[in-house]
Amino acid sequence: MTEPVARVDLNSDVGESFGRWTLDDAAMLTTVSSANIACGFHAGDPSSIRRSLTVAAANGVTVGAHVGYRDLVGFGRRDLDVDTPDLIADVIYQIGALQALAVGAGTRVSYVKPHGALYNRIVHDERQAEAVVTAITELDPSLVLLGLPGSVVLHLAERAGVPTATEAFADRAYTPEGKLVSRRVEGSVLHDPELIAGRILRLVETGTITAIDGTEVRLHADSICVHGDTDGAVEAARALRARLTGAGVRITAFAGA
Amino acid sequence: MTEPVARVDLNSDVGESFGRWTLDDAAMLTTVSSANIACGFHAGDPSSIRRSLTVAAANGVTVGAHVGYRDLVGFGRRDLDVDTPDLIADVIYQIGALQALAVGAGTRVSYVKPHGALYNRIVHDERQAEAVVTAITELDPSLVLLGLPGSVVLHLAERAGVPTATEAFADRAYTPEGKLVSRRVEGSVLHDPELIAGRILRLVETGTITAIDGTEVRLHADSICVHGDTDGAVEAARALRARLTGAGVRITAFAGA
Amino acid sequence: MTEPVARVDLNSDVGESFGRWTLDDAAMLTTVSSANIACGFHAGDPSSIRRSLTVAAANGVTVGAHVGYRDLVGFGRRDLDVDTPDLIADVIYQIGALQALAVGAGTRVSYVKPHGALYNRIVHDERQAEAVVTAITELDPSLVLLGLPGSVVLHLAERAGVPTATEAFADRAYTPEGKLVSRRVEGSVLHDPELIAGRILRLVETGTITAIDGTEVRLHADSICVHGDTDGAVEAARALRARLTGAGVRITAFAGA
Amino acid sequence: MTEPVARVDLNSDVGESFGRWTLDDAAMLTTVSSANIACGFHAGDPSSIRRSLTVAAANGVTVGAHVGYRDLVGFGRRDLDVDTPDLIADVIYQIGALQALAVGAGTRVSYVKPHGALYNRIVHDERQAEAVVTAITELDPSLVLLGLPGSVVLHLAERAGVPTATEAFADRAYTPEGKLVSRRVEGSVLHDPELIAGRILRLVETGTITAIDGTEVRLHADSICVHGDTDGAVEAARALRARLTGAGVRITAFAGA
Repeated sequence: MTEPVARVDLNSDVGESFGRWTLDDAAMLTTVSSANIACGFHAGDPSSIRRSLTVAAANGVTVGAHVGYRDLVGFGRRDLDVDTPDLIADVIYQIGALQALAVGAGTRVSYVKPHGALYNRIVHDERQAEAVVTAITELDPSLVLLGLPGSVVLHLAERAGVPTATEAFADRAYTPEGKLVSRRVEGSVLHDPELIAGRILRLVETGTITAIDGTEVRLHADSICVHGDTDGAVEAARALRARLTGAGVRITAFAGA
Repeated sequence: MTEPVARVDLNSDVGESFGRWTLDDAAMLTTVSSANIACGFHAGDPSSIRRSLTVAAANGVTVGAHVGYRDLVGFGRRDLDVDTPDLIADVIYQIGALQALAVGAGTRVSYVKPHGALYNRIVHDERQAEAVVTAITELDPSLVLLGLPGSVVLHLAERAGVPTATEAFADRAYTPEGKLVSRRVEGSVLHDPELIAGRILRLVETGTITAIDGTEVRLHADSICVHGDTDGAVEAARALRARLTGAGVRITAFAGA
Repeated sequence: MTEPVARVDLNSDVGESFGRWTLDDAAMLTTVSSANIACGFHAGDPSSIRRSLTVAAANGVTVGAHVGYRDLVGFGRRDLDVDTPDLIADVIYQIGALQALAVGAGTRVSYVKPHGALYNRIVHDERQAEAVVTAITELDPSLVLLGLPGSVVLHLAERAGVPTATEAFADRAYTPEGKLVSRRVEGSVLHDPELIAGRILRLVETGTITAIDGTEVRLHADSICVHGDTDGAVEAARALRARLTGAGVRITAFAGA
Repeated sequence: MTEPVARVDLNSDVGESFGRWTLDDAAMLTTVSSANIACGFHAGDPSSIRRSLTVAAANGVTVGAHVGYRDLVGFGRRDLDVDTPDLIADVIYQIGALQALAVGAGTRVSYVKPHGALYNRIVHDERQAEAVVTAITELDPSLVLLGLPGSVVLHLAERAGVPTATEAFADRAYTPEGKLVSRRVEGSVLHDPELIAGRILRLVETGTITAIDGTEVRLHADSICVHGDTDGAVEAARALRARLTGAGVRITAFAGA
């Protein structure tokens, strides 16, 4: 009798160029198993989104819609008080645009991951969380919603019959309650690739992670988010992948074919 | 043996609100058989597009994607020199966003009508025309392309196997060659609803229209475009519809179910 | 010995067109003494702003910069969490653009009135309020800041040596503490032009207004804000002006030459 | 009796960041004598513009308004058919915004250089050229207009009494008529820093440059444009500056204090 093989997904944000301002994501797309592709509201012009989709498809990377607030200059990182009908429509619009671009690239959108300030807000804001879930159920309730374990939006999605997946952040510290330590706290962001790889390998193998106070906390993560927009990001992601696969963990998308 | 019933489509531009700036199109959506719905690049925010889709669906109006240049302040009416890959992606993005919003409204996108400066440019510009056709074939070659008779873009669409439909403009004068008289020429825009209705009825019944010099010119039009953005537009459209149906012409969409 | 003449300013929001979406403000500009002109971030394209400036100048109306959040689709009415350096720069940028357009129109910017969600936020948010005050002191500390009596931003402006002016809202109910009754409360918005005119005349003559609970509350207002974006707005503003001038009140700008 | 000292200006495009998409221009601002700063229409958010202004001021670099078409995703490089009143207002708006941000940075706007597709168009398009000149005369006719020798816009500026300055492009080949060789022609863009430095030194010293066919052509250039948006751009600009100053040429702004 064989042990079950441990498996996990690696996801990263891509497609974040805008016109002349290019962010190269080709290397990251050879490393992750799921790509959160910007949809034009916080980043991503149609042409660069299409290129990222093509590269994702060529690498067999599963595609998700990285939907955000309509705020290019703020990169979707600024809290925005969007009305419910507007947010529903904004989310559908973005997913649909990406779905259409995916056709020509020979792939399809398998999941939705809200971005930035929207991601953070629907961890607790029931109204906006409900709007995001409504958008998905209205458009295609087979789309998987990727979010933070314990967040309001995942709870509402489950109640609405939308499949969900949870993620942990490779480079972030956790509280003893299994929540992210605020970026304002010293030590909240980890930088050592070896330390990160070790933590995540242990999380995948045991379902526990060491909190910032040294205690062990249980955490369920179908996917590990690796950031793509810092120096050394690709190297860190590759080191993490190598450590995981070296230990026999299979890197595989949580959604898609 | 019965005579075949004459039939024609009436189309108009709708969904052109943007945020606080609302243009009410509910009345027009009770008059036309096909609605060219803005997709957010020259007009239309997702929320107002969604409302227009719902009203169109409720009235059994067939929906088309009114794709345009990315130029809100210019309302897509300014000639823009867009690169080929960018234009392909821009068109797919807009159609896809509308397709997704149509799902929740209980309808679907059946055709594509380029808007404004893009519409005018692809009458003659082979490169941009090819980009529009490529976008449609890449996304869904069953979408009908609505355009000007004799235009380069319709020619390229036919060659690519994309179904096409032609339109005449209710309020515009024609040259003896069957082309639109430039708006800069006096008499190029017609204002008398009775005159307009008579011209169009005759066009539908006989396939000919009286040119600006008094000669008769043959013109094939599957659809008649009625403008929605002028005072009295709805009344003029209703008068035209009444005249046509009164003469036994059936108003029916050229595309859709 | 003569009694001092009562005087007050009337202000309204203008310049809120955007491209094809026009809001006609010419009539309002013959009624008010101060015009809050949009600066392009929440409304107003440069060309329409310039036209509003020209009409304001022709009518001797004092011009203020109606600065807002960068959110066209939300019309600056959605709360936005802007960083301090970004907000300082956004406010300076908007005032400067308006100042430059004012030159050719033969007028100049005399005051600043924050718009919409920004206006509401800096009533209490010290950080954003400080950013607005910093923008004014950095650019031109002789610009008058128009705001709500008792707001944090006016307090900070006074401390920084920026001249301030206060306003009351013609169509809004007040609490016994002299604050605006929330729009969510029934009776918070007044519609009867006669009632409004009577309340404001009494406010100008006595410095008191009847609160929603019937008590009298003292309120200092250098200016009365009349809304321009509702049906009958111009008529209501004219009725108010007529009532005030009929009672011998002089309508005169609080700032400018 | 001493020979007159040869002098020339070096200009480059800066301030082209937009939100999260940053282009670092601090190094270029230690090399050039004039900075064409983006004004928000084709690039540049207010906050990043303000930072570039501060760095320019700290380095004693003269500031110009790099005005462009309203086309962020196209970076102002796409030909756009803007109406005359709109273009006048767009140019004034952009200059004014930059002027205001310059105040706090302790500097001021001394000249105007149109950007990208606008720059190219007003070399020959009289209508748009006239609009740019009108914008400057309306706002401040002491602003210097920097452009291509022999261009329509410089001719119109001179006729209107607007001071002008001409520029040559360090990395571009010239026709025997003294015009830029089209980028589509092989050899139109030069890459060898040594070759470039030698050509420009000779241009400054003798007023002649070697055309693409080997003939010598006379060219008047008050300023040399060095591009900032390619790899090695700063190094090439520094090499050019070193070669010029090493030969006794003084690098000094054509405008400003």
